[in-house]
Amino acid sequence: MIKRIVMAQKPSIPKGTRDFSPEQMAQRNYIFDTIKDVFRSFGYSQIETPAMENLSTLLGKYGDEGDKLLFRVLNSGDPFDKVDLGAYRNEDGTYRSGTLSAALCEKGLRYDLTVPFARFVVQHQSELAFPFKRYQIQPVWRADRPQKGRYREFYQCDVDAIGSNSQMLELELVQMVEAVFKKLDINVLLKINNRKVLTGLAEVCGFPDKVVDITVAIDKLDKIGLEAVEEEMISKGLTKEAVAVLEPVLQLSGSTSEKIAAMRVVLAASETGLKGLDELEELFGFIAAAGVECPVEIDLSLARGLNYYTGAIFEVKALDWQIGSICGGGRYDNLTGIFGLPGMSGVGISFGADRIFDVLAGLGKFPEGLSTSTTLLFANMDTASAAYVLPLAAKLREKGVSVEVYPDSGKLKKQFDYAAKKNIPFISICGSTEAEQGTVNIKNLATGDQKAFPRGSMADIVAFLQ
Amino acid sequence: MIKRIVMAQKPSIPKGTRDFSPEQMAQRNYIFDTIKDVFRSFGYSQIETPAMENLSTLLGKYGDEGDKLLFRVLNSGDPFDKVDLGAYRNEDGTYRSGTLSAALCEKGLRYDLTVPFARFVVQHQSELAFPFKRYQIQPVWRADRPQKGRYREFYQCDVDAIGSNSQMLELELVQMVEAVFKKLDINVLLKINNRKVLTGLAEVCGFPDKVVDITVAIDKLDKIGLEAVEEEMISKGLTKEAVAVLEPVLQLSGSTSEKIAAMRVVLAASETGLKGLDELEELFGFIAAAGVECPVEIDLSLARGLNYYTGAIFEVKALDWQIGSICGGGRYDNLTGIFGLPGMSGVGISFGADRIFDVLAGLGKFPEGLSTSTTLLFANMDTASAAYVLPLAAKLREKGVSVEVYPDSGKLKKQFDYAAKKNIPFISICGSTEAEQGTVNIKNLATGDQKAFPRGSMADIVAFLQ
Repeated sequence: MIKRIVMAQKPSIPKGTRDFSPEQMAQRNYIFDTIKDVFRSFGYSQIETPAMENLSTLLGKYGDEGDKLLFRVLNSGDPFDKVDLGAYRNEDGTYRSGTLSAALCEKGLRYDLTVPFARFVVQHQSELAFPFKRYQIQPVWRADRPQKGRYREFYQCDVDAIGSNSQMLELELVQMVEAVFKKLDINVLLKINNRKVLTGLAEVCGFPDKVVDITVAIDKLDKIGLEAVEEEMISKGLTKEAVAVLEPVLQLSGSTSEKIAAMRVVLAASETGLKGLDELEELFGFIAAAGVECPVEIDLSLARGLNYYTGAIFEVKALDWQIGSICGGGRYDNLTGIFGLPGMSGVGISFGADRIFDVLAGLGKFPEGLSTSTTLLFANMDTASAAYVLPLAAKLREKGVSVEVYPDSGKLKKQFDYAAKKNIPFISICGSTEAEQGTVNIKNLATGDQKAFPRGSMADIVAFLQ
Repeated sequence: MIKRIVMAQKPSIPKGTRDFSPEQMAQRNYIFDTIKDVFRSFGYSQIETPAMENLSTLLGKYGDEGDKLLFRVLNSGDPFDKVDLGAYRNEDGTYRSGTLSAALCEKGLRYDLTVPFARFVVQHQSELAFPFKRYQIQPVWRADRPQKGRYREFYQCDVDAIGSNSQMLELELVQMVEAVFKKLDINVLLKINNRKVLTGLAEVCGFPDKVVDITVAIDKLDKIGLEAVEEEMISKGLTKEAVAVLEPVLQLSGSTSEKIAAMRVVLAASETGLKGLDELEELFGFIAAAGVECPVEIDLSLARGLNYYTGAIFEVKALDWQIGSICGGGRYDNLTGIFGLPGMSGVGISFGADRIFDVLAGLGKFPEGLSTSTTLLFANMDTASAAYVLPLAAKLREKGVSVEVYPDSGKLKKQFDYAAKKNIPFISICGSTEAEQGTVNIKNLATGDQKAFPRGSMADIVAFLQ
């Protein structure tokens, strides 16, 4: 037996994970509550799925790199006695980690909310109303190397609709993005691309397998200019003729409809590309009809999720704060196919809570008073005064006021310090005089205003505390 | 390489875990929101801690049985190549599971919220205002055998105050229990015991190491009667004289103060016992002063947490529904000592969300309309009608109404079915006639009432939807 070491040093948490203090929770809840209110106003309902999924559900869904980043949960019981560990050994003495861990671990922590959502839809399909519109706000876990802004546990905040091809659902995502960031008072630019258009571009220039190279090159247009982009395309194996075909697309300008019109010429020979333009055109028609005011533009360089998105691709940038995208998503035509339910098209978007937090903090846009949890602190002079204020505190709570009675009598300085540390704006000190007179005096700690009330005049007290 | 099997059968989730549907989420959120509102009105603030803790934080805190029930997370990277697996093998070929899993797993899933809370307080002590009053609502994981009402993942809902010995904090727990169940409309009985009183009873009868046996025997009083309880005590090794000392306690009756007075006689020789009675007396004094109306009684048979509680012990029973306790807690004098911060007394209580759910469902006490997420569905006749209703939907959402526009035009029957399945109470069908006339007609699907409004009269429309 290894001797159990009694812990003496300060405890810590696993790297890449975080505790959230009351102040941080208040700020995070402000973001989540704002987002939830918007989701609900569009008829999206909340679901939750378990933190642990069967590894068979998770493996192979995120690429080889993703499989390595899954946190695996050791089978309970005595898992090692059920497995011949030696059989998993290579000749050089190392172990075949993947297969050995598969033998020892049946479960893994969820890596995102999309695969569990697909699993949920297939498993519960008979109970759901389609199109099924759901949101889900839960932590996910990735065994990534932790660094600034990258955590091993972080919340995702996803909204998806599944079971319809209609661009009305893309519109709803656009509208929800607009509403969320309007409420949070963050100026954003919403960029839209379409996977079918990218496919079309690769087709018409004769290099259908170069979608990623073409998109990555286009992405550098702002930074390195037209000529360098064309050179990069050629370095990736495209011909001069192919680049010439794409050139009009690299020089798009004007309104969204002018851009779409210009692309129609380039993509005339690609059925897929034209379908993508039809989708974009329909979506921008809906956006105009619905009166969306937030800036929305086509951006052909958006390369998010090229492996799984099949239609629209979305990305949201904060305009007044330098940070990566704070929101992203797209349409996937066959999300549930892997779980045996083909032909379900869905579209969704994920709000990046941690980055939105950073933007709000950076711009100083968290509302004031978020971390004020208590409105009034009754000081505790002695047992008799505590007995006098307890029913008052109870009545104020019934009126919706958040009230504390300091639990220990003793130095008032300590009680004032407590109020200051908790940002409690009002304090009441009732001693024997107040008890005799049946009064309550309350002090506004910010202004110094102090007032005495008859203890029965709850309405006046509540008004003073507002 | 083992061939990866493409999944064809219906996917599932690990046993003992659950998905929560939109309806269940609405019901669960009703419980959590009610509880949170009460916690906040007493000045308790929310924190969150990571799902994974270092195993060194968790091990040894829940007894040997608890250690076995911890879910362990396999180290990432190639953990097997860093460990000489053979060195953990016994002569009989089995492995020393505990030490081997310790070598392969540094992290575990949190087993409860109390130990992470203690770890949090020690780690962040310099940032906190003491007494630190926090609540925490997060899932916990236990590798228990799943059965009806017992899950491997379930939410705990804990409220604790740490850093004061005052019985005022016990009072706050009593008041919060009262407020939560009043709001949830569940009649409850709150039972209180005190660990020091139990210690005193064992002391005065001369068997200080028989606390658990005595308490367990007392617990059977209602079921088996006085004589059988006394027999059981004797079978556990108590003498007749010892039982005679305890007899007055087994026949307690009258008011709380009469019970306390009777116990003072029995416990006269035990300093600890008298201290416990002082605490009970002070707490019941505060309960009376604060005007608590919910029934609260002393119950010496409460044996919850005898290994760690040092003062008050709480348990809440639903009066109108047969189920175990729906809430429980107590005071622990040295919660943070194990993490190197001695002398911090705390007291807390945990609300059993799953059982409260069962009580509300059993008694039919969930409020109506919880699962109604959308108020109004605009039917989708064609693209022109969609364009007509989109700005209307946007304006109604701005007024706080939850509105959907059905994404696909097509059969109205399908759209009505969707409204029915989602419990959407109002539907609006606007075709070319309405668009020409600039009107909106809305039908109340429950009553059949139908009314047409000019499309500008938002206030009237909002009123009709209420």
